[in-house]
Amino acid sequence: METTEQLIEWLSRYGADEDGGVTRLLYTRSWKEAQEALADKMKSLGLQPAFDDAGNLFGRLQGTDPESPCILTGSHVDTVQRGGKYDGAYGIVAGLAALSRLRDRYGAPRKTIEVAAFCEEEGSRFPYNYWGSTFMTGAADYKDIEHAHDRRGVPFMQAMRESGFGPGSHGRGPRKDIDTFIELHIEQGAILEREGKTIGIVEQIVGLQRYTVRVKGEANHAGTTPMSYRRDAMRAASEMVAAVMDSADEIGAPLVATVGQMELIPGTPNVIPGEVIFTIDVRHPDGLRLEEACARMIKLLRSIAERRDATIEVERWMNTAPVDMDAELTGAIERLCQMRNFSYRRMPSGAGHDAQILAACCRTAMIFVPSRNGVSHSPLEYTKPEHLEAGVQVLMDLLYQLAYEA
Amino acid sequence: METTEQLIEWLSRYGADEDGGVTRLLYTRSWKEAQEALADKMKSLGLQPAFDDAGNLFGRLQGTDPESPCILTGSHVDTVQRGGKYDGAYGIVAGLAALSRLRDRYGAPRKTIEVAAFCEEEGSRFPYNYWGSTFMTGAADYKDIEHAHDRRGVPFMQAMRESGFGPGSHGRGPRKDIDTFIELHIEQGAILEREGKTIGIVEQIVGLQRYTVRVKGEANHAGTTPMSYRRDAMRAASEMVAAVMDSADEIGAPLVATVGQMELIPGTPNVIPGEVIFTIDVRHPDGLRLEEACARMIKLLRSIAERRDATIEVERWMNTAPVDMDAELTGAIERLCQMRNFSYRRMPSGAGHDAQILAACCRTAMIFVPSRNGVSHSPLEYTKPEHLEAGVQVLMDLLYQLAYEA
Repeated sequence: METTEQLIEWLSRYGADEDGGVTRLLYTRSWKEAQEALADKMKSLGLQPAFDDAGNLFGRLQGTDPESPCILTGSHVDTVQRGGKYDGAYGIVAGLAALSRLRDRYGAPRKTIEVAAFCEEEGSRFPYNYWGSTFMTGAADYKDIEHAHDRRGVPFMQAMRESGFGPGSHGRGPRKDIDTFIELHIEQGAILEREGKTIGIVEQIVGLQRYTVRVKGEANHAGTTPMSYRRDAMRAASEMVAAVMDSADEIGAPLVATVGQMELIPGTPNVIPGEVIFTIDVRHPDGLRLEEACARMIKLLRSIAERRDATIEVERWMNTAPVDMDAELTGAIERLCQMRNFSYRRMPSGAGHDAQILAACCRTAMIFVPSRNGVSHSPLEYTKPEHLEAGVQVLMDLLYQLAYEA
Repeated sequence: METTEQLIEWLSRYGADEDGGVTRLLYTRSWKEAQEALADKMKSLGLQPAFDDAGNLFGRLQGTDPESPCILTGSHVDTVQRGGKYDGAYGIVAGLAALSRLRDRYGAPRKTIEVAAFCEEEGSRFPYNYWGSTFMTGAADYKDIEHAHDRRGVPFMQAMRESGFGPGSHGRGPRKDIDTFIELHIEQGAILEREGKTIGIVEQIVGLQRYTVRVKGEANHAGTTPMSYRRDAMRAASEMVAAVMDSADEIGAPLVATVGQMELIPGTPNVIPGEVIFTIDVRHPDGLRLEEACARMIKLLRSIAERRDATIEVERWMNTAPVDMDAELTGAIERLCQMRNFSYRRMPSGAGHDAQILAACCRTAMIFVPSRNGVSHSPLEYTKPEHLEAGVQVLMDLLYQLAYEA
């Protein structure tokens, strides 16, 4: 039986980049090869593979109770451009390892368990996230993606059809038979590593608001315009960014705020910027506190704009509510960590995951393992083998409770 | 006899943009047509035109004393992309108007006077400024521009030759016969307009230092990295920009500081910038104070970098010393303004001009007229006809003193 690390290495061969990273964009050849290899692997591990029409792959360990709903584990098979070997992949291969070990050790479960390799989560080829899980749960269908194109202009539907998927291709649409979802994932942050914990038990996936702020002053000659005459959009914007950060510190963890993108117009060294456009990304696991924090920050922006004789437009273009994980499952995971003597902590997930889509339809839990240096979406992604196995152990224990004992 | 405004409108037809602006880039067809039209205009006004090998055009009003050095006035014929009708052009047509009026009224001067249409000042086609005046004074020669290309890859030398200029083309190289230069120019700032003055008497052309600051922190996930773990290059950079601006205010006028360009790496909304690169442009008419101000600002940058656990590299890539205008000429201009009852102020020039090149070789003065709303390098450049004429009047008066009375 392969170790989880060996399974990670094996899957990373599909879409391997030269620098040790992985690129598997939705419906590309490397993506298709990975899904087909996973289907073969499922068969060889005694799981029954099946694709749905969107390209999600499920490996089924049939339960003895034909009436029982399905318990699902897994994650997404797609990656970002030049991503790592662990993001998404870990949740899939951990599911394969857990199911095959359970079957080898205990035979067929009472309730059916499946491992999912969701076709898409990252939104890195088409401007659409969570296609795999939203298709499966019925939260999205073909009309939601019919106008999407990739950067080369290839329509989403065409890419899907050319890859062998699409309406009617496999006779499997959205599912209603799932009552539990457990996602194992790398943390993609440095909290577990810094605190020396093996397991993170996700309590919430944070809510997220994203804004574009457009600051307008007056473009002018950098040499001939005295400081006192200026309506410098860059001066105003820099004070705004500093104020947003100070405000995030004051509000305190787990709130985070990020300014990741900024454009200066006209953007030449000898012209005072007449306009500056920047983004703000704000996250908090509590929806009300997130709302309050954003309102406080926007008020700050407006007062700075006024002081600097600039105007601002603030546009909110993303507003995702926090999603709670199932308290009962979370408690069960905590007890399992204690039983196994794994150090752990409860924590929010600062990143989005398929689990937040599934949580709308069934009880859902998420388990994190440490990311070295907190690095993700990079060839440098790494998690120690013992942490990979610890996650699989907790997943096995939980699935045993849910599918064999219950 | 045409008014100065009519001459401005006439010259603006060469390289006219559809929106009322002007684009005359060095050695292009519109540039060549403008220089040829100016040569014809000189002839029709009784001035003797001559090109030098670089494409500078001179219109000569021969003095009666063959031993006397030459008094030069004028400015540059080239423009920025989509520039205005007044920048550069005003100094040329003002010279034409002044010389032809002086000749009509007083006949030949004792000392020779010439009006120059310098071929290039803006650096807007090739990455090289002041080609016209540096060629004429001998401060630059062909080897300084031999490796320069325009954005389409056309070599400077090739463009020069195709336009009919270059080594030996006109048998005229650098000149040693000039002992005075007077440049009339639009202010390109709003000081004269705001203070209700007609004439600006330039005392110095400011010194300028330009820096590129590279702030390095650590790129990280915007959701999974707590504020307290961050080494956010953007947070540090925004505090730096705000501090530079506050410092410029504290030091006070005439110091100016501008951050016109900034790049965030990687530059996406959901990643904490690991690196931010920005420019600082600092100007002051006093070289020592400029040096002190820059040192103070860089010290601030370093202390902010330290506080934010970021590193910085500061590269100075431009360092132009301030240039004083001739005190005697400046005084003469002031007395002429008083005599003519023109409101005026002494002031620095915050922008660079051909006068700063000429000042290294001969006594030099600069006269400003107001720019509406301080706008320049734009189709919206505008100066009232009475201000255009007031500038020409002062120039005529000064040239009369220097060439007829002296």
